[in-house]
This record gives sequence, structure tokens and C-alpha cells, in this order.
Amino acid sequence: MISVVLLGAGNVATHLYKAFSNSETISITQWYNRTRSSISSYANDVAITDTLEDLIEADIYIIAVSDDSIAQLSSDLPFTNRFVVHTSGSVAMHDIDKKNQIGVFYPLQTFSKAADINFSEVPICIEVYEKENLQLLKDLAIAVNCKPHKITTEQRQTLHLAAVFVNNFTNQFYRIGHEICETKNIEFEILHPLIEETAKKIQDMSPFMAQTGPAKRNDKKTIKRQLKLIEKEEHESIYKMLTASIKKTHGVSNFRPRKGQTKTN
Amino acid sequence: MISVVLLGAGNVATHLYKAFSNSETISITQWYNRTRSSISSYANDVAITDTLEDLIEADIYIIAVSDDSIAQLSSDLPFTNRFVVHTSGSVAMHDIDKKNQIGVFYPLQTFSKAADINFSEVPICIEVYEKENLQLLKDLAIAVNCKPHKITTEQRQTLHLAAVFVNNFTNQFYRIGHEICETKNIEFEILHPLIEETAKKIQDMSPFMAQTGPAKRNDKKTIKRQLKLIEKEEHESIYKMLTASIKKTHGVSNFRPRKGQTKTN
Repeated sequence: MISVVLLGAGNVATHLYKAFSNSETISITQWYNRTRSSISSYANDVAITDTLEDLIEADIYIIAVSDDSIAQLSSDLPFTNRFVVHTSGSVAMHDIDKKNQIGVFYPLQTFSKAADINFSEVPICIEVYEKENLQLLKDLAIAVNCKPHKITTEQRQTLHLAAVFVNNFTNQFYRIGHEICETKNIEFEILHPLIEETAKKIQDMSPFMAQTGPAKRNDKKTIKRQLKLIEKEEHESIYKMLTASIKKTHGVSNFRPRKGQTKTN
Repeated sequence: MISVVLLGAGNVATHLYKAFSNSETISITQWYNRTRSSISSYANDVAITDTLEDLIEADIYIIAVSDDSIAQLSSDLPFTNRFVVHTSGSVAMHDIDKKNQIGVFYPLQTFSKAADINFSEVPICIEVYEKENLQLLKDLAIAVNCKPHKITTEQRQTLHLAAVFVNNFTNQFYRIGHEICETKNIEFEILHPLIEETAKKIQDMSPFMAQTGPAKRNDKKTIKRQLKLIEKEEHESIYKMLTASIKKTHGVSNFRPRKGQTKTN
């Protein structure tokens, strides 16, 4: 049995709470949040507190608060030499106060309070300073049916950067697609199957291989026609930049004489 | 029974062939391609030809060739007053030679030869010039378990534009994510669950509601840290542009005094 104290009440903390509650090998000893009301609805199921001095002993303390608050909260902890981890994709492990043993337990997923997550498919990136704590983090990940990945701080921060591209930026393209549909009274839902298939496709082939469309084909007519159709300047700039990026990736950006073809002056 | 002649042998034509073959209410009368060898492997299952003069009578002729070849192929057809449609997202219906009855049967999906498609989830955008042909196109879509959507040429071209954002441009972000992972020897597969969840999330909520991340939170520290981490200039420009776009969408681009807060110069 792994005993856990959870600190924070945001999206990640809430999803961790649910996943831990469903595990038979994890016991949530306590749930702390500085505002008691955010977690008071769970008071029947778990010991809750808004006072750091009341924290009791546990195998691991998981800080799941906003990036900017991690360092301060970790230094406010009224104990030493226990095992304290944060759950952030971008904050350095060493931002946690060294009076305790430190580590990172970063679930690489997008968490909204509204959306239920199948936690068993979430990769957990783990990092420890004291090697003897590695197994505990691995066990914790496995206890919620997740795959632990031991990585370095630099790798985690790089993954977090890549995640911004494939998640936040991708979602913004969904948003732009939505906006474009609205201008002509088209239901955005008609694009849902395409969006799902685009994401599904790269589970089996590389994004490079999966690419299709006018930019990859260097179909100048369609590109010109689409640029005319765009109403917002911002969408136009993004269209141009991404078209150039795809062309570059697929080597269609410059004139390259074909075999046997020569330049005529 | 709807009798169909299919023209072309690209990704769309091949996927249509498979879907039509599996339908009990569609009979593929003939499959034409100007290069016989591309479809000769199907010769045991369907009548194939590379000669337009050999085309026999059918309820509908479906031109599934590259956008640039549609007009020419349609005018090369050696008959008149039959029903001829194309399958393109961006070519005007009226590019089809008017000597025949004309229409559009546009499956809004990404087709790669390698990836199998569950055709029953594909929305089919349909358009006809002669109203009496509308029911046939609807029946054809339903015969392959698809939902027909009657739209205008302008709506179809707008959808095609939106599709470029949510499919091609999104896939390019998967590609950039892949590149970023490679620089630090991280397996891209670790991002697969995040990519799937990002696409799944907007099936139930709007992309606006689904957004998360540093740009939406206006988390300047993380944005600065990530910009430092980016190695390629191209990725940096894209990061900046999309961050600005998300900020604009979520109204965090400008300083807005909070309630009770006043500017102090």
C-alpha cells in the first residue's frame, strides 16, 4: 500500500484524486488545499485540510498546484527528509525545496475538469533525485495502470514543449476550423470524423507519412483559391506559414530540376 | 440497385471502390483508369477499362481524379445527358462539362492508401445541378452507411478550407512534435495518448472550451522558457504566432485592469 498526501485542487489534482481512489494499492492519507471549500465536497471520502501544519506522515507528497506556486509551497512544508514531488511539465525538479527528498510525477495528458479521462492510457514521466525513490514512483504509476517513463528534466521540458504543439496549438486549429465553418453556417460537427481520423492515423504511421493535402502536393491552384476564401487576416498568416512549413518538410518549396531536365537560361 | 462507373485510381477512388463493393445496393458496373495497370489487380472482381469509348451505361459516373484533371476528363466523356459527379472538396461543380447532368459527391475524410477507413463515419457533402438527381446521391451515401449533407459549392469550399486547418495543419504539428522529440531522443509514441485525447475532447465540447496550456493561461514564464528551448527558427515563428492567436481568442492579449484595480502609471 502506498500512502499519498495530495496538495492542490486544480484539474491535475482532481484527476489524480479520482485515479488514486480507484486503485487498490494506493491510500490517500490526506488532501490539502489552501482553500478548504474547493475540496470540502470530498470530506466524507478523505481527510481534508487547509493547514500545512496538520499534514500527517505519508510515503509521498504530491504537489499539484500551478507552476508558479510549487517552489513556495514546497518550502512552506513543515517537515524534512520526506519524499515530495510535483506534477508539472515544465518546472525544474530542483525548484522543490531540498529539505525534502525530491522528484517529479508528470502525467502527460490534457486535463479539463469537465472531461473524464481514461487514466490508464496516460504516460507518466518520472524523475527522482534520490535513486532509492525511483521504484516508489514506478509503483505509483503502475498502481493507476499507467506506464512510467523515466526521463531527464530536459527531456520532460522538451516533451512539454512538443505537447504544446500537438495539443494546445492543434486545438487552436480546431477553433479556427470552427470559426471558418461559422462564417458560412456550416455545423462544425461535420469535421469531427476527419479530426478523429487525423489523430488516429498517426498511431500507426509517422506524421510525415500521414500528410496529405494541397501544401504537400504543392497544388498552387487550390492554395491560391483557399487564400482568397479566407476572411480573417490572422487565418491568412497562419495558412501561409503552415503551408510553407509543410512544403519545406516535404521538399516542395524550391524549384528542383527533375532528372534529365536542364535550366534554360 | 444503383449502378456506378468509377473513374480514377487514386486514394479516394480506391476507398470508394472498397466501400461500394461492400454495399448490397450498389453495383460497380465498370472501373476506368487511363493507366490499366493501376487497377488490373481488381480485374477478377470488376470490369476494368482504360478506354473511355468502352464505358457502358450506368446510373452515375463518379470522377475521382486529381482536381486539375476533372474538367478535361469530364469533357472527354463520349456521351451526353448522363449523371456525372466529381469527389473534390475544392473544384466547382460547374467545372464538369455541361453536356452531362452534373453533381458533387465529396467524402470529407483523409484518405491514405495505407490506412483503412471506417467508411460509415464519413460525412458526404453532396451537390446537384438537376434537382431530380439529389435523391440518387443521398441513396448512394446511405448505401455505404454515410450521412449525406446537402451543401452549396461555397460551403463545400469553406469546409475544405477548414479541413486543411484541422487535418493537414494539425498533422504538421504532429510532425513538429515528432521533430522536437527526436532532438532529445524521446520516443514520439509517448505523445500518442495526448494527441488522441485532444481530438476526442472536442467531440463533446467546443474547441474554445477545450483549450488549456500556457498561452491560454497567459503564463509568461513558461512561454519564455519554452521559446528558449526551441532550436529551429521555423518552430519559434510558429510558436509565437499560435501563442498570439490563442491569447487573442481567449482575450488575454492585452492588459485589462481587474475590477477595483486602477492604473498607477
